[in-house]
Amino acid sequence: MDIVMIGSGNVAAVLGRKFVAAGHRIIQVVGRNATAASELAYEWDTESANYMSLISRRADVYLIAVTDNAIAGVVADLRLPGKVVAHTAGSVSKDVLKTVTDHYGVLYPLQSIRKDINYLPDIPVYFEASDEKAFAVLKKLASSISLEPPVVAGSEERLKLHVAAVIVNNFPNHLFSLAEQFCRKEKLDFRQLLPLITETVQRLKTSSPSETQTGPAFRNDGETLQRHLEILKNHPQLLHIYKVMTESIKQAK
Amino acid sequence: MDIVMIGSGNVAAVLGRKFVAAGHRIIQVVGRNATAASELAYEWDTESANYMSLISRRADVYLIAVTDNAIAGVVADLRLPGKVVAHTAGSVSKDVLKTVTDHYGVLYPLQSIRKDINYLPDIPVYFEASDEKAFAVLKKLASSISLEPPVVAGSEERLKLHVAAVIVNNFPNHLFSLAEQFCRKEKLDFRQLLPLITETVQRLKTSSPSETQTGPAFRNDGETLQRHLEILKNHPQLLHIYKVMTESIKQAK
Repeated sequence: MDIVMIGSGNVAAVLGRKFVAAGHRIIQVVGRNATAASELAYEWDTESANYMSLISRRADVYLIAVTDNAIAGVVADLRLPGKVVAHTAGSVSKDVLKTVTDHYGVLYPLQSIRKDINYLPDIPVYFEASDEKAFAVLKKLASSISLEPPVVAGSEERLKLHVAAVIVNNFPNHLFSLAEQFCRKEKLDFRQLLPLITETVQRLKTSSPSETQTGPAFRNDGETLQRHLEILKNHPQLLHIYKVMTESIKQAK
Repeated sequence: MDIVMIGSGNVAAVLGRKFVAAGHRIIQVVGRNATAASELAYEWDTESANYMSLISRRADVYLIAVTDNAIAGVVADLRLPGKVVAHTAGSVSKDVLKTVTDHYGVLYPLQSIRKDINYLPDIPVYFEASDEKAFAVLKKLASSISLEPPVVAGSEERLKLHVAAVIVNNFPNHLFSLAEQFCRKEKLDFRQLLPLITETVQRLKTSSPSETQTGPAFRNDGETLQRHLEILKNHPQLLHIYKVMTESIKQAK
């Protein structure tokens, strides 16, 4: 398919790379950030434009991959009758696009996406569409870049997926961050914990996390817990988290 | 080196495999669990024994890889004068071994270890020793199975490492577990989150987690946070964790 990519940030870059790798053609990158847009256009051997008014009319699909708050601005003066148009925002309704065309939808990548990486991460894709034409096109597009079959998800489901994503991505990353701080203060090498972290995640591929829970909280090992709390006396923020997580693990048993 | 492995559980099995892979010889597996001990002995083409009284005297090193609480029982009647003896427990002092020999120490693997896997995980090893002979032998042994140079760590440091391990392993795994439960109730497929989890961890290899923190709490995106709390109304345990983690992320900024 011929695609116009609107946006030049992380999601635009990585989805664009996936599309190109899947054999689609990006015929134009439209973005306010002239440097970023022309860099992506160069990467994909195509043209770039910095104003919505210069948007090409020759594409099959238009993908709006900009931040949630910027979508309304992009859409305001955009009219693409007969074309399929989708945005990639988890928390924005598809209906924000209904003034643009009769064939619109959402293509939501469930992944933490950054463009400054030299590999293409696996990206599960969720989509929804206003009508059959948009459904068929977006489904085909989504299928071409995700390992698993794409799943239909409306606003409510995307919101729930986002909650789950926060729990498995933002929260563990914060724990890693607190642990790194703890290690720095206690003169330990945080990087020595990376094999353990990798192993924790490796196990998810074959076992449910509820089956592989271990540790002093899970064993209800009061003596070890007490010694850990003692160690954390000088780390109040972590002490609080330690107590809350320990209670929650006990409660889940 | 010729090694006697005391214990037949997860740590004994995986450390033993690492030793064999590194060219050492395990000349005997001693374990109360006859089935598990003979299985390991068969795997390593060696003999097994089920009583401490049958322990071979021909090894260079004796490794006590049993649960923390079982060490005292193993050690009670064990006398191995002249030999190097070490246990693998993070939270037990090396001095529990001083009646066994004059050359004792600890070899602590900083990893979550299970034997029912078909790969050998990377295992950072920490060690300490009572004297120069034990130090030289344990350092050599540790070096032979870990990618990074082994690090000297006494009881206090091992305790701190264990605290850090709980934070980066037990707590994230509990979050994965809660997310899995949430997905089940909300009819979402938890497995679709695995690429996101993998990516979160992948990033630790090149960036500090404090630099890659994202999400509504970090952005202080009150509207999204409010919608997430709304979704979590029917998940009280997760709601509490969500609030605590959100506050902690804001506080860390």
